[in-house]
Amino acid sequence: MAKRRLVTLLTDFGSADPYVAAMKGTILQYCPMADIVDISHNIPPHQILHGAFVLANSAPCFPEGTLHVVVVDPGVGTDRAILVGQFGGHLFLFPDNGVISLIKQMLPLEGIVSVRNEKFLPHTSEISHTFHGRDIFAPLAGHILNGVDISNLGPAPSRYKLLDMPTPQEENGELIGRIIYVDHFGNLISNISQEDLRRRWASPEALQVQCNGQPVGKLAVTYGHVAAGKPLALFNSMGLVEVAVNFGQACDMFKAGVGAEVRIRETKYLDVDA
Amino acid sequence: MAKRRLVTLLTDFGSADPYVAAMKGTILQYCPMADIVDISHNIPPHQILHGAFVLANSAPCFPEGTLHVVVVDPGVGTDRAILVGQFGGHLFLFPDNGVISLIKQMLPLEGIVSVRNEKFLPHTSEISHTFHGRDIFAPLAGHILNGVDISNLGPAPSRYKLLDMPTPQEENGELIGRIIYVDHFGNLISNISQEDLRRRWASPEALQVQCNGQPVGKLAVTYGHVAAGKPLALFNSMGLVEVAVNFGQACDMFKAGVGAEVRIRETKYLDVDA
Amino acid sequence: MAKRRLVTLLTDFGSADPYVAAMKGTILQYCPMADIVDISHNIPPHQILHGAFVLANSAPCFPEGTLHVVVVDPGVGTDRAILVGQFGGHLFLFPDNGVISLIKQMLPLEGIVSVRNEKFLPHTSEISHTFHGRDIFAPLAGHILNGVDISNLGPAPSRYKLLDMPTPQEENGELIGRIIYVDHFGNLISNISQEDLRRRWASPEALQVQCNGQPVGKLAVTYGHVAAGKPLALFNSMGLVEVAVNFGQACDMFKAGVGAEVRIRETKYLDVDA
Repeated sequence: MAKRRLVTLLTDFGSADPYVAAMKGTILQYCPMADIVDISHNIPPHQILHGAFVLANSAPCFPEGTLHVVVVDPGVGTDRAILVGQFGGHLFLFPDNGVISLIKQMLPLEGIVSVRNEKFLPHTSEISHTFHGRDIFAPLAGHILNGVDISNLGPAPSRYKLLDMPTPQEENGELIGRIIYVDHFGNLISNISQEDLRRRWASPEALQVQCNGQPVGKLAVTYGHVAAGKPLALFNSMGLVEVAVNFGQACDMFKAGVGAEVRIRETKYLDVDA
Repeated sequence: MAKRRLVTLLTDFGSADPYVAAMKGTILQYCPMADIVDISHNIPPHQILHGAFVLANSAPCFPEGTLHVVVVDPGVGTDRAILVGQFGGHLFLFPDNGVISLIKQMLPLEGIVSVRNEKFLPHTSEISHTFHGRDIFAPLAGHILNGVDISNLGPAPSRYKLLDMPTPQEENGELIGRIIYVDHFGNLISNISQEDLRRRWASPEALQVQCNGQPVGKLAVTYGHVAAGKPLALFNSMGLVEVAVNFGQACDMFKAGVGAEVRIRETKYLDVDA
Repeated sequence: MAKRRLVTLLTDFGSADPYVAAMKGTILQYCPMADIVDISHNIPPHQILHGAFVLANSAPCFPEGTLHVVVVDPGVGTDRAILVGQFGGHLFLFPDNGVISLIKQMLPLEGIVSVRNEKFLPHTSEISHTFHGRDIFAPLAGHILNGVDISNLGPAPSRYKLLDMPTPQEENGELIGRIIYVDHFGNLISNISQEDLRRRWASPEALQVQCNGQPVGKLAVTYGHVAAGKPLALFNSMGLVEVAVNFGQACDMFKAGVGAEVRIRETKYLDVDA
């Protein structure tokens, strides 16, 4: 059976406007057999770090050889480069703004080019200044799906942008991290990994967690292990410490969002309001 | 031409997070030729009955042989079973929490198993406690799409969960039902079926309808048969009594949501505010 | 390799209800090899002009031969006709309510029929009065994808509905247009085209723009050419004058939505609040 030409799309375009379909139609013009899968189009406008997080927690699940096209691109129309990188058997087409940062931490880089070869770019007169998703990324995706070797697309960039990702800090026997993502269920996902805890403590399960100044309690195994409406912390499906409320929204209970502090230590946190 | 390996997805994951794409990528890892169609990812978090309604009104439209994967699963990580049922030529993979209840009322059960065969389950060490959609449901979907006979997945369950679905009650010549779903257009869909009315009255078209204590009027044929902004009741595309407003939102006009009372009788309802 | 049977869907059904999936399942019943791509299901309920805009800015990007199914259809269940038109090599299946108006301005009409042939319509008893998307459009789409010649579907309509599209007006050397679309980024898209300006002025780049009574400034090339938080006007990817805010929401800054006035002239607009 013919191999599929899988391509995923991740944008901040939302799902109401014509933009996503314009990209899909254009990819299909260039590669009529493309199989297009949405990762998400609901990255908040221009939020590169948010896009990097969603990309890193979905793209590696796809089969090797998949092309991932990322258009979270507030610099559209300026001279920011467009890159194609191969990481761990996956291909990524993305603007040079750091959206690849978390993938780079997870998957080995096997090659990267800055797209310059005019043979694979539309004529300047056909490129709008505001919608490179349709005018540049989609045609390039089509060419790559059609089998163009990425080494033909341009030279290796002398450097490319990586974002400073916040890392947890240790202070007086406490590990201090930050919420980096709030999901649809109101779960508060921190930048503290299971690995971070195991490196410091023999029994992470006994540790105490605090979020935005309020005690959460010990690390539980899953949501259903506390009563409905009760908070808990756990290692989530990404291996990160997550603060959640069973059948509830932790972001509301802890009045916390991206940037809020999460603290972990061996001794219990007191409820200051109690 | 090769037969397709159709699989639908119904979840409460929303469309912003990496979760849906992580499931799709994993299904494609296990079955690279899968054709994935979204039913919806906007079931309100943990609302099993809502999911059951959406499933029952879409899955039967697909070709026989389609696999429907349902992950509205507040019990993730607990010991709730995972079931595969064949109903009316369709396959359903779902958590044992009652989400199949309405399908069971509509389509004949042709076989059901509780998934236990470890041959088709990832190693425990590879299963997170919070994301069985990616770690269990997706691999199982891949195996089923690849042709594994469901009788190999595990034994028939001794019992499985079905939800008590509200049914309309008769009282003094009145039929009293409840709103069970409010759609995107603000239409109020009740649990009173065309069949319920035909069984009781020879000419259902002449009956009078009341919603949340306010008169709606007689059953109309379609939205455009009343003036813009006017309310009506009709038999909708599911064969259920629906209260609507032409070019408007009935949920606002009747200040009604899921659980609101709908009454039907032969004599006119008075407008108490009039 | 087999040619694909591409079909796009554009509706006002939203993405939470069973309606879109019911249509997709039905299309796949009639044409199991259909490849279905969503344009959008987030057209605001009943907003035909909004649907026409999204259609015109996405459908032409798809390969020729694609079938575009449009179900923004407040007249469902009334006697409004259902049309199939071929425009510029694309097929469009749509209710006769004007939703095709902008496509007709962009692509040459190559044939149009009013669907009447009962051979390709379900029995009346199988057609609901509220969901022609599932009961009529989806089966018809399947037939067309299966290769039915559209001339077999019915006769040419004696006339069909086109909407009056607002056009910019000239007044004392000023061109006065209107905002016709607000996108997900809060960009305000007007009905003034690059062509409109070039026809009147030799150097459109030097012109001054006003939106909702407030000065915007000169036409810029792209968002990143002004500082973050600053407003600009530019020719967007549709060739229309768009008012935007770099890293911001122009709809908020200008307190403007669909219908707001955009004025363009050679001399600077004063800030009345300054």
